[in-house]
Amino acid sequence: MGMAPVAHVLWSRHLNGNPTDSAWTNRDRFVLSNGHACALQYCMLHLTGYKVGMEDLQSFRQLGSITPGHPEKHMTDGIEVTTGPLGQGIANGVGLAMGAKHAAATFNEDGFPLVDHKVIVFCGDGCLQEGVSSEASSLAGHLKLDNLIVIYDDNSITIDGPTDLSFTEDVPARYRAYGWNTIEVQGGDLDLEAISGAIKVARSHVGQPTLISLKTTIGYGCSKANTHGVHGAPLGDAVLADFKTAMGMDAAKKFDVSDNVYNFYKNSFAARGQEMQDAWNEMFGRYQSQFPEKAKEFNRIFNLKALPADWKANVLKYSEESKIGATRNYGGDVLRSITSVVPELIGGSADLTPSNKTNFDTTDFQATSYEGRYFRFGVREHGMFAISNGLASYGYIPFTATFLNFITYGWGAVRLSALSHIQQIFVMTHDSIFLGEDGPTHQPVEVMPLMRACPNLLTFRPADGKETAGAWILAMENRGGPSVLCLSRQKCPHLTGTDAEKVKMGAYRILGDADAKVVLIATGSEVSLCVEAAAKLGDSVAVVSAPCLELFDQQSAAYQASVLPANALKVSVEASTTYGWKGYSDHQIGIPAWGASAPIKSLREKFGFTADAVAKVVSDLAAQGFNIKK
Amino acid sequence: MGMAPVAHVLWSRHLNGNPTDSAWTNRDRFVLSNGHACALQYCMLHLTGYKVGMEDLQSFRQLGSITPGHPEKHMTDGIEVTTGPLGQGIANGVGLAMGAKHAAATFNEDGFPLVDHKVIVFCGDGCLQEGVSSEASSLAGHLKLDNLIVIYDDNSITIDGPTDLSFTEDVPARYRAYGWNTIEVQGGDLDLEAISGAIKVARSHVGQPTLISLKTTIGYGCSKANTHGVHGAPLGDAVLADFKTAMGMDAAKKFDVSDNVYNFYKNSFAARGQEMQDAWNEMFGRYQSQFPEKAKEFNRIFNLKALPADWKANVLKYSEESKIGATRNYGGDVLRSITSVVPELIGGSADLTPSNKTNFDTTDFQATSYEGRYFRFGVREHGMFAISNGLASYGYIPFTATFLNFITYGWGAVRLSALSHIQQIFVMTHDSIFLGEDGPTHQPVEVMPLMRACPNLLTFRPADGKETAGAWILAMENRGGPSVLCLSRQKCPHLTGTDAEKVKMGAYRILGDADAKVVLIATGSEVSLCVEAAAKLGDSVAVVSAPCLELFDQQSAAYQASVLPANALKVSVEASTTYGWKGYSDHQIGIPAWGASAPIKSLREKFGFTADAVAKVVSDLAAQGFNIKK
Repeated sequence: MGMAPVAHVLWSRHLNGNPTDSAWTNRDRFVLSNGHACALQYCMLHLTGYKVGMEDLQSFRQLGSITPGHPEKHMTDGIEVTTGPLGQGIANGVGLAMGAKHAAATFNEDGFPLVDHKVIVFCGDGCLQEGVSSEASSLAGHLKLDNLIVIYDDNSITIDGPTDLSFTEDVPARYRAYGWNTIEVQGGDLDLEAISGAIKVARSHVGQPTLISLKTTIGYGCSKANTHGVHGAPLGDAVLADFKTAMGMDAAKKFDVSDNVYNFYKNSFAARGQEMQDAWNEMFGRYQSQFPEKAKEFNRIFNLKALPADWKANVLKYSEESKIGATRNYGGDVLRSITSVVPELIGGSADLTPSNKTNFDTTDFQATSYEGRYFRFGVREHGMFAISNGLASYGYIPFTATFLNFITYGWGAVRLSALSHIQQIFVMTHDSIFLGEDGPTHQPVEVMPLMRACPNLLTFRPADGKETAGAWILAMENRGGPSVLCLSRQKCPHLTGTDAEKVKMGAYRILGDADAKVVLIATGSEVSLCVEAAAKLGDSVAVVSAPCLELFDQQSAAYQASVLPANALKVSVEASTTYGWKGYSDHQIGIPAWGASAPIKSLREKFGFTADAVAKVVSDLAAQGFNIKK
Repeated sequence: MGMAPVAHVLWSRHLNGNPTDSAWTNRDRFVLSNGHACALQYCMLHLTGYKVGMEDLQSFRQLGSITPGHPEKHMTDGIEVTTGPLGQGIANGVGLAMGAKHAAATFNEDGFPLVDHKVIVFCGDGCLQEGVSSEASSLAGHLKLDNLIVIYDDNSITIDGPTDLSFTEDVPARYRAYGWNTIEVQGGDLDLEAISGAIKVARSHVGQPTLISLKTTIGYGCSKANTHGVHGAPLGDAVLADFKTAMGMDAAKKFDVSDNVYNFYKNSFAARGQEMQDAWNEMFGRYQSQFPEKAKEFNRIFNLKALPADWKANVLKYSEESKIGATRNYGGDVLRSITSVVPELIGGSADLTPSNKTNFDTTDFQATSYEGRYFRFGVREHGMFAISNGLASYGYIPFTATFLNFITYGWGAVRLSALSHIQQIFVMTHDSIFLGEDGPTHQPVEVMPLMRACPNLLTFRPADGKETAGAWILAMENRGGPSVLCLSRQKCPHLTGTDAEKVKMGAYRILGDADAKVVLIATGSEVSLCVEAAAKLGDSVAVVSAPCLELFDQQSAAYQASVLPANALKVSVEASTTYGWKGYSDHQIGIPAWGASAPIKSLREKFGFTADAVAKVVSDLAAQGFNIKK
C-alpha cells in the first residue's frame, strides 16, 4: 500500500513495456527487490494487461497459482527476476543494467538505439541493509550505470519495529559515496507530481545511477498505517473495509476493479507501450536491412536464445599428450576457446583473475568500454553472483569466478539461479584442501554436499583436460540452470580412459573391467590418484571417474549398476567431506574435518591422499574380509 | 610490508597488551581482517614477546606449525579471531567492540573502569568491498561504538590490479554516512608521526567509531612496490636482498633480528603492557573487595568461562501435557528460561524477532543502553553471524536468529565459527517448506547437508518441546563450537517417548520394539508424522527420532545398530533434500526439488507428507518385497 502511489505513477507515466509482448527486448526492466510486496506487482501486471487474471490474484499464495508469495521469474508473465531474499533484486537490477549497457555498446548504431531502456528497481530498508546490495551498488556507481534507477521505499518500519532500532545511517549519502545521483522525495504518499518529477529527472540523468528515496507510510491510508504489524500480516476485514470506505470504494466488494481503472491503465501504459514497440519494430526492420548480420545476432541472442550453430566445434580438445596443468588451467583454455565463438558468454572474477585463469581476449567492461566482456567484480562474491543472475535474465551467459570456498559467500544468489532456472556458470578454482598454504580458512570441505543437494544445479569436478572440456560443454548447454565447475589449483595429468563425451553420464569406468572386485570411484584431482593406487593393487581393481553425480543419478538403474556393481567393494575418494558418499560407496576416503595450511605434499601425506595410502585402505578392507554385498 | 610502519607505531606506542598474559581481560583487541598479511602479525607477536618463536616464523605455512597462511584464533598465542576470508575481521571487530561495551556497562563502577580498552582492526580494500563489512559497519555506526578503530590500508592494489578496476567509491564518505568518524593520512609509508597522531585522535574520539584511511604503497621500499605481483607471491631472493641492503640490513642474513630491536619492543610494548596490567590487577583487587559478587561473575564469564553452577535446573521442562506450539515457540520459551539465569547468553535476530520468538526479558542493546542483552541486528545475516563470532571471542555466548533458509546468506561466518572453535547458537526457524506461503525463495531444501557436513558444528532439529529443551542444553554445553537449532513455524505436538536427555544420543527409538521390521527415522516436525503413520501400519513399525545426526554418528556401532537394525526396512522422512540420508536408511522420503508457495495443508498433500502418504510408501515397499538386508 505504501508503494501504490509510486507504482501508479511509474506504470502510468514512465515505465515502458508491452503487455502483449512482455519479451520485447527494449522494454524497461522492472524489479521488485522487496519481493514480499508482490501483491502490488501482481496487481499492476493485472491492471496493465499482462497474463495475470483476476483469478490469479484471488489465488495469491495458493498451490499451483502463478502468484506465489514472492515473485518468480519463470512462473509469471512480466516478472523479470525472482526476488524475495532481500537485497538480491538491487543486484539483479545492476546486472540487468550492465547487460543493457553491453547490448547497447555492441548493437546500437547511429540512429538505431536498439537498446536504450531503463532498469527500475523498487526496494525497501531490508534490501539496503543487506551486504549484497552494498556490493552491487558500489560496482554500479563505479560503472556509472545511468540506465539504473532504484526507488527506495523509505517507510521507517521493519519487522522488528521502527528502523531506528538498527538502521540510522544516511542512505543517500552512502549512495553518493558510491558515485550515485540521489533524489529525496518527502511526499511519497500523496505528492504524485513530486514522485513523477523525480523519476523524470532520474531517467534523463547522465553518467550515474540514481537512487530516489521516497518517504512513505507503510499501510498508508488504513488505521494500521505506520506500524510494523502491517509488514507481513493481513490487514483484517474491518481495517480493510474502513480503508475502502475512506477511499470512496464499496467496502463490501472484493477483487473488484471498475472499467474506468482498466481503461486508464490500458491507455496510459499498454497503449503507450504498444506504440513504442511498434516504432521500435519499424526501426529494427530498417536495422535488419542495414546491418543484417548484427540483426541476426541480436535476434539469436535475445530472442531465440540459441547458441551459435557451430560453437562446439571450436571447443578445445585434449588428449593424453596435451600439456599438463591444473584443471583451472584447462578451464581457462577451454573458456577462451568458447568465448572466441560465443559472444554472449561474458563474465569475470571476484578479484582472483590470475588465480582463476578466467581472462580472455576482450577488453574490460568499464564505464568507458561497455563493449568489453570481462567484468572486474572486485572482492564481492555475493554481488557478483546476484549481478550475474541479472545478466543471465537479460539474455547473456555469465560465468563467475572465485575460489570454491567462497561460493558460500554468495550462496543466497546461487540458489536463486537454480530456483529461477537461470544459466550461470560458476568457475570455482582451488577446489580442495590441496590449494595448500592458504590454509583451512580458504579450503572448502563442506560445500560439495550443498551443491549436490541443490535442485537444478549441476556440480562438475573434472579429472583432467578432456573432462574439463566436457564439463564446460555441458555447462554451456545447460540453458535452464546453473553449473559449477570445481577446478584444481594443482596439476592433474591427462588420463587414459577419460572422455569429454562421457561426462554427460555423470560417472563412468575409465580403468578395469565390469566384473572388477574393487571399484575406486573418485572425482577431480583424486581420479589420477586412484589410477595410481589401482596400479599398485592389480587387475581386479576398476576406477570410475564421477565428474557429475547429479547426472549419474539421472542415468538408468542398469547403467548405474554397471558402473558401480552391487557385488564389488566400492571405495570413494574425494578430498572433501565424505558426507553423501555412502549413497555410492561402501567405504569413503575423504577429509575428516578441516584441512591445514601446508604445502600440498605434506597435506597429501597427512590426510592419506597418496597412492600408497589409498591402496593400503583397500588392501586392509579386503584383508578384514570387508562385507562385500552379494 | 605496506602496513609495517603503522604496525610499528601501533605496537610500540598505542596498543595495550601483555605478552606474558595474552588473556588479560582489559587488553586491546587487535584484529587483522586482511588475514593474508599475517606474516606481519606473526612478526609483531614474535618481536613483542608472545609465544611465537623464530622457529615458528621459519615454519610459516608448514604442516603442524602455529603460523598458518591465515591467522587462526585457537592456534596461535595473541590471535584474537580467525581471519582471512575478507571482511570477516571488520565484523568480528564490531562484535568485540559490542562485547566490550556490554561488559563495561555491566561491570564498570565509578572509579573502576574494568573494561575500557579499544578494538583495533587492520583491513584492506578487499575487506571493504565485501558486503559483510558493510553490514557490520552500518550497525557499528548506529551503535556509536567509539571503542572501535579500523585502520584501512589504502594501497590502491588488489589481486586483479589497481583498485580503479572496480573500486572507486569514496570509502571515508561512505563511513561518514554510516555515522563514523574518519581520518585520512596521506603518508602511510613514512610519516610515523601522522600515523601516530591519527591513532591518538581515534582513541580519544567519543560517540563514533573511527576509520583511519592510510595511503600506503604495497611492498613499500622494494623494487616490486606498488604492483599487484606483491599481493600473494614471494618477493624473490634478489628483490629481498636489494630491499635489505637499501634498509641498511645485512642482505645475507635471514630470520635475523638484532637485540636492539627485541629490546625496543620489549620496552615500548611488553613493559608498558605489564605495567598497565599490574595497575589493572591492583584495581581489580579493590573491586573484588567492594563488589565481590560482580567480581566473581566477571571472573566466571571472562576467565573461567564456566556456566553458572545451577543453570540447568532452570531450563524449561516439557511433558506430553504441555501446551502445544511450534518448536520455534518452545525454542523461545526455553531461551527465556536460560537467559534468566545465564547473563552471558546474549543475542538477537536479523529483523525477524516476532517470527523467531527470540525476545526475552531485557532491554535492547543500543548506544544509550549498552547493558541491554538483545541485539537488533537489522536485515544483516552475514554481519550478524560474523559480529557474533566477535562477541563469542570476547567471552559471551551469542545466539543469532533468522529463517533457516538465510543461514546461507552468512555461511562465510558460520563456517568460521566452526573452524575457530567458537560457540554461537544459531536459532533458525521456519526450517522447512512447511513455512508455507512465503514460497520457495524462503524455503530451505538444500541446507541440511551443508550443516551436517560441516566439521565441528552440531545440527539439531528437535521434534517437540522436550527435544527442543534437550537441544538447547546441548548447544549451551557445546562450548567449543557452534550449534544450529532448526525450528518449525508449524505446531509440533509433544510426543510419547521423546526425551530431553536422549537428544545427546543423536537418534533414539521413541516408539516400537528393537526387533521391529520397519523403522521410520525422522527429524523435527516429521517425527510426529511418523508416529501417526506408524499407528496406521501396526505393531511391527518403530519410530526413531533423530534430532542430531552428528551426535548419532559419534555413538558406538552397537548403539547405532540397535537404533537402526541391519535387518529392518529403514525409511527416513525429512522435509528437505534426501541427500545424505542413504547413509541411514534404505528408502528416503523428502522434498525432491524446490517447494512451493501455498498453505501448509496443500504442501503436505502435494509432497506426500501426510500420515496416509507415508504409510502408503512403507506398505508399497513391503508389498514390492523390498530387499530387506538380512
